[in-house]
Amino acid sequence: MLGSTHGTLTTDFRARVVACGEQPRPGAVHGTAAAEGDLDVSGRPLHAPVPDLDRFFRPESLAVIGASDAEGRPNTGITRQLIAWAERVGARVHPVHPTRASVFGLPCSASVADLPEQVDLAVLLVADPLPLIDELAEAKVKFAVAFASGFAETGEDGAAAQEHLAAAVRRSGMRLLGPNTNLNAFERFRDDLEGPAIALITQSGHQGRPLFALQELGIRLSHWAPTGNEADLEAADFISYFAERPEVGAVACYLEGLKDGRSFLLAADRAARARVPVVAVKVGRTETGARTAASHTGKLTGADQVVDAAMRQYGVIRVDGLDELQDTSALLARARPPVADGVVVYSISGGTGAHFADLATAAGLTLPTLSAAKQAELHEWIPPYLNVANPVDNGGHPVGDWRGRKIIDAILADPAVGVLICPITGPFPPMSDRLARDLVEAAEQTDKLVCVVWGSPVGTEAAYRETLLGSSRVATFRTFANCIGAVRAHLAHHRFTSSYRSPFDDAPRVPSPSFRKAQALMRPGRQLSEHAAKQLLRAYGIRVPREQLVTSAAAAVRAAGQVGYPVVMKASGTHLAHKTELGLVKVGLTSASQVRDAYRELTDIARYEGVELDGVLVCQMVARGVEMVVGVTHDALFGPTVTVGLGGVLVEVLGDAAVRVPPFGEEQARDMLDELRGRALLEGVRGGPPVDVDALVEVVLRVQRMALELGGDLAELDINPLMVLPRGQGAVALDALVVCS
Amino acid sequence: MLGSTHGTLTTDFRARVVACGEQPRPGAVHGTAAAEGDLDVSGRPLHAPVPDLDRFFRPESLAVIGASDAEGRPNTGITRQLIAWAERVGARVHPVHPTRASVFGLPCSASVADLPEQVDLAVLLVADPLPLIDELAEAKVKFAVAFASGFAETGEDGAAAQEHLAAAVRRSGMRLLGPNTNLNAFERFRDDLEGPAIALITQSGHQGRPLFALQELGIRLSHWAPTGNEADLEAADFISYFAERPEVGAVACYLEGLKDGRSFLLAADRAARARVPVVAVKVGRTETGARTAASHTGKLTGADQVVDAAMRQYGVIRVDGLDELQDTSALLARARPPVADGVVVYSISGGTGAHFADLATAAGLTLPTLSAAKQAELHEWIPPYLNVANPVDNGGHPVGDWRGRKIIDAILADPAVGVLICPITGPFPPMSDRLARDLVEAAEQTDKLVCVVWGSPVGTEAAYRETLLGSSRVATFRTFANCIGAVRAHLAHHRFTSSYRSPFDDAPRVPSPSFRKAQALMRPGRQLSEHAAKQLLRAYGIRVPREQLVTSAAAAVRAAGQVGYPVVMKASGTHLAHKTELGLVKVGLTSASQVRDAYRELTDIARYEGVELDGVLVCQMVARGVEMVVGVTHDALFGPTVTVGLGGVLVEVLGDAAVRVPPFGEEQARDMLDELRGRALLEGVRGGPPVDVDALVEVVLRVQRMALELGGDLAELDINPLMVLPRGQGAVALDALVVCS
Repeated sequence: MLGSTHGTLTTDFRARVVACGEQPRPGAVHGTAAAEGDLDVSGRPLHAPVPDLDRFFRPESLAVIGASDAEGRPNTGITRQLIAWAERVGARVHPVHPTRASVFGLPCSASVADLPEQVDLAVLLVADPLPLIDELAEAKVKFAVAFASGFAETGEDGAAAQEHLAAAVRRSGMRLLGPNTNLNAFERFRDDLEGPAIALITQSGHQGRPLFALQELGIRLSHWAPTGNEADLEAADFISYFAERPEVGAVACYLEGLKDGRSFLLAADRAARARVPVVAVKVGRTETGARTAASHTGKLTGADQVVDAAMRQYGVIRVDGLDELQDTSALLARARPPVADGVVVYSISGGTGAHFADLATAAGLTLPTLSAAKQAELHEWIPPYLNVANPVDNGGHPVGDWRGRKIIDAILADPAVGVLICPITGPFPPMSDRLARDLVEAAEQTDKLVCVVWGSPVGTEAAYRETLLGSSRVATFRTFANCIGAVRAHLAHHRFTSSYRSPFDDAPRVPSPSFRKAQALMRPGRQLSEHAAKQLLRAYGIRVPREQLVTSAAAAVRAAGQVGYPVVMKASGTHLAHKTELGLVKVGLTSASQVRDAYRELTDIARYEGVELDGVLVCQMVARGVEMVVGVTHDALFGPTVTVGLGGVLVEVLGDAAVRVPPFGEEQARDMLDELRGRALLEGVRGGPPVDVDALVEVVLRVQRMALELGGDLAELDINPLMVLPRGQGAVALDALVVCS
Repeated sequence: MLGSTHGTLTTDFRARVVACGEQPRPGAVHGTAAAEGDLDVSGRPLHAPVPDLDRFFRPESLAVIGASDAEGRPNTGITRQLIAWAERVGARVHPVHPTRASVFGLPCSASVADLPEQVDLAVLLVADPLPLIDELAEAKVKFAVAFASGFAETGEDGAAAQEHLAAAVRRSGMRLLGPNTNLNAFERFRDDLEGPAIALITQSGHQGRPLFALQELGIRLSHWAPTGNEADLEAADFISYFAERPEVGAVACYLEGLKDGRSFLLAADRAARARVPVVAVKVGRTETGARTAASHTGKLTGADQVVDAAMRQYGVIRVDGLDELQDTSALLARARPPVADGVVVYSISGGTGAHFADLATAAGLTLPTLSAAKQAELHEWIPPYLNVANPVDNGGHPVGDWRGRKIIDAILADPAVGVLICPITGPFPPMSDRLARDLVEAAEQTDKLVCVVWGSPVGTEAAYRETLLGSSRVATFRTFANCIGAVRAHLAHHRFTSSYRSPFDDAPRVPSPSFRKAQALMRPGRQLSEHAAKQLLRAYGIRVPREQLVTSAAAAVRAAGQVGYPVVMKASGTHLAHKTELGLVKVGLTSASQVRDAYRELTDIARYEGVELDGVLVCQMVARGVEMVVGVTHDALFGPTVTVGLGGVLVEVLGDAAVRVPPFGEEQARDMLDELRGRALLEGVRGGPPVDVDALVEVVLRVQRMALELGGDLAELDINPLMVLPRGQGAVALDALVVCS
């Protein structure tokens, strides 16, 4: 599906990789992985296996361990529901209980070993599933589901018990859902609904309820994976599986934490390649939310800014509310690819049109002005004093007769129009009933997207319940905001996937020659001196000023002569911070005598402040440009991340920075700059020239390469400032902080 | 209701006013107004009359001009609806028609002059209401309603016709609703609902429909004012009137434009004094919206940032969607004043609690951690492994029996708790039915706010429709976001009104002595030189550097000696901008020879650039601080506005500025600073000292005074930069631009 139009970008990125000098790298840490070819240079997988979950969702045979039909036992209700579900999916049921001969009339096995056949799926209704795992594996059970709670969600002891369970499952070769999961996978799904469906993944059953209830509004749901504590199978496994199911139109997720950042990204990548939208609520916007969520399922929530960036990199649509999750996934599951980005707002009220257009435009939707010819056509049916440029105001009356359908068809026939949105804020049956019917009928006959907002808070009106919800071709919303959000996500997802090229395809697998040089500079457990940090940057082809580290005034003068006047002099040591504030930086020195004086002054201050120096740096003075910061930090979920921000006051006071999770390509590096609120600074301010954005992007990509190759050995990198010079003149790292793990 | 706790602020503000030197001001423009005592120094009213609209909403007699009972005539349906409405409100109906003897069995008058009694209200079902106005006035009709369209909403000709109509109405003494309005005021309101009601004001009938439909959900609506084109009566009139009606709990507005900024603020002020919340959708976030809205009712939409600020200054709650308008006004109309700000989230699912808490915290709500004692109490009914710190997770089962109510009561009994929110995302009748009942019963017995989010998209469940909507004490929402937004607005509105003191009470009525000095400096239609602009600032007590304007090198050297070295020298002229970029500023001059050279260089550059100078400024060099900008601009709707922003790159690139509409007090000036994203700069960066915020606030208030006193004569003022020095050292205007009208 990915066309050759993306060749340029790839080539470009590869060229950059080669510029760092790609070649097979000896050594144990990465060597084996690189040889196997499915790990990147950081030793992390480039592909996630897609588990075959067919027999999980549609088993031919099912064992219920701990089955019961005794009155009043909790397992009785569960057993009954499982038997009913098995009947619907056509699975044979085998109850297992040590002392019962039969359960609900079905012959009961005394133990797993006694099962009459090899079963696909075993549901474990026991307090402790651990002792059963080996037995199940022996019986070649493919999947198990553990409802038991008391694991990672309860604290340290539970987490240890869960790790034991996970280890047993890994040894077994069987796949496990849970523990701390529930019956949601075995609900009664409506089977009378057609078309692409939503597949649902939740880490909390209650939170999936409103999505499940969408079926009552005519929206098809194909699967529900309640992943619980994810000792084995995790949300990512289900995303990968659902992305390849033909009946799945969109994957909706309620996530509190992620078991593993990389596996989530690989799954999202798979969905992006398949052009299947993934819409997700991810708890953890705030500390409170993160803490509460973590205590609920015992999973990491990750730094929210990083989660947000990672999702956007792979086209995952993040929403806040369950109502948005419903509306967005329902639209994206069912809408065909958009034929154009233009949105026309059509209403029986000028006020409604103005209001909707205002909010839609503010949200970034494009409302093209209809052509004069189209407007003239619309005025055949709409009184001349009404505005039909877009929004189209019909004044009400035309929708009550044959003209209504003509207007809708005329709008849909416009090639600039990809989406027609009709907000009906108040039902007025003489008009809105026919309008709803016309919209449904027109939607049946077009490839374009037709949306309706039914604004009445009552929601029992026939035009809404029967006409609109009865159509799978009209997307019906209840609020302007959710309609606008879903349409925007739909158009953006199409744009994203049409030009998507997986960064995993281009991720470096073997280290560059830079890596060997870099290794020699690393000092485990220590912070490098500024000079050493800059040598590390230089190893990766990042420009630093000409500079020399000297330990005498005479050497300083010699160095200044070689570096070239004017020079900057800085005290250098392994634990120096706030050099400027301490007076340990002297700029604009133009003569030998100034250099000599500066040397004396710097060493005096250092002595006075009790700071140990390894010398004084005599540096080339660099022309003025825009100061940026570029850095690497480690995220608990996603590993190394790359940050770029505006330097000085902007990043310190406003935190104006963008972050990405490697691997990412040049396009994402450019997107990072576009995210900066102070982006305009790069275009030149007060008549200044635009800066060398290409050089800045290059630095970001080289820093990414460092982050990937040095991996966990690089605890922290901070280039501050990176002076980005006018276009064509490059970028120079004026100072750098490197902490080794 | 406004306590004496506000005395300090007032005294303070008055002291500042006196510091500018308040005294009666001679002269025609402001004199009369000041004497009358109801205009401020800018000549604008300080009080809005509240129209007595009792007889509009409850007339004793009603004339229907153009009444009809002929089959198929549009006026027939309207006449029928008016007669039905009159019957409900107990008004006598008098149809008026030149040729009919009776209409619907009621005796018909041939003309207004023939009416059998003086009527309170005349509804004009005629294409052109203008010719009727004098006649109606003669007949002493109190109110008229004009449905006719074709006025300002259609363009220039229509606007002229509307102005004729408005002039006739002004002369008549009668009040007019419309033109381009509709029957909304005469709808059938439910009269079986009790408690505080929503009063509705709309500038588009269709947009009010969902609010009207709230009555079907049990929410009382008392009035609907569809103000149409507002040739006479405007939204502000209805806000003022509703704010004083005992049955009105909140005013909900759908606004496209405002007829007059000042009258809107005076009405909002009245509502704030009465502690009646005003919730408003105001179209015009974007250019598209503003344009479309303006063409719909022919009103100004105003610069959106200014509208936003003006609303916040007076506590008007601005929302985006009609759903938010419904949910927020319904809550604020019915909720009692909060007894505490603490919100507890209570749920049958840990996931739901985590998710809600995350979004609520992100929105700024306070979720206090419950005390150990309270948690122990809750654990009497909730299993020990569940988190009850807040959010409170009951795990589900306790809500199914007597424990459910105990838990709710225990939470509500906590003095830290003002609001209990229970999100029920999925209905599960065995639990949620009883939970809903318990919540309703508990809400009846507490002063605290109880909110429920019914998350099911279906909305036909009995627990929702009957139990929850059947209660006026529980606030029921459908989405997390709307619940959070409404609760936040409720708590914020209470905080706002409890400390509200009307800025109109403290607004200056007479000009300060500064004004006379300022007048002498103004040059109508011209931009002042930097020197003159600074003299204007000095007149208002704003500090400027010591400086002298010189026209020779020798004079420059003398001036430098008097000003004191080091000095700054700047070319001075009436049309100089971008002085720094042109090289027309020299800083840090420390000797007579440098001053002489600088004088020569500046005049050379000016000659080369063809810039006419009135001399060269020799200025005191001011210590470094934080650069700010403070300015005055004119808004089409609200008149002069005062802006403060961070100087340099922050305001130029990020537009980091806050705006206020005068009059405003010291507290609002301080709030402006809190709105700045770069606020932290004022606290000192990189170990620098905090700046003199008091001096900055003082400058903002003095600039406000200038804006009020100079009014329309001051087209534009821009102090850039205002150097704000470390705390205790003041603030100095280093440069200023003044344009006179």
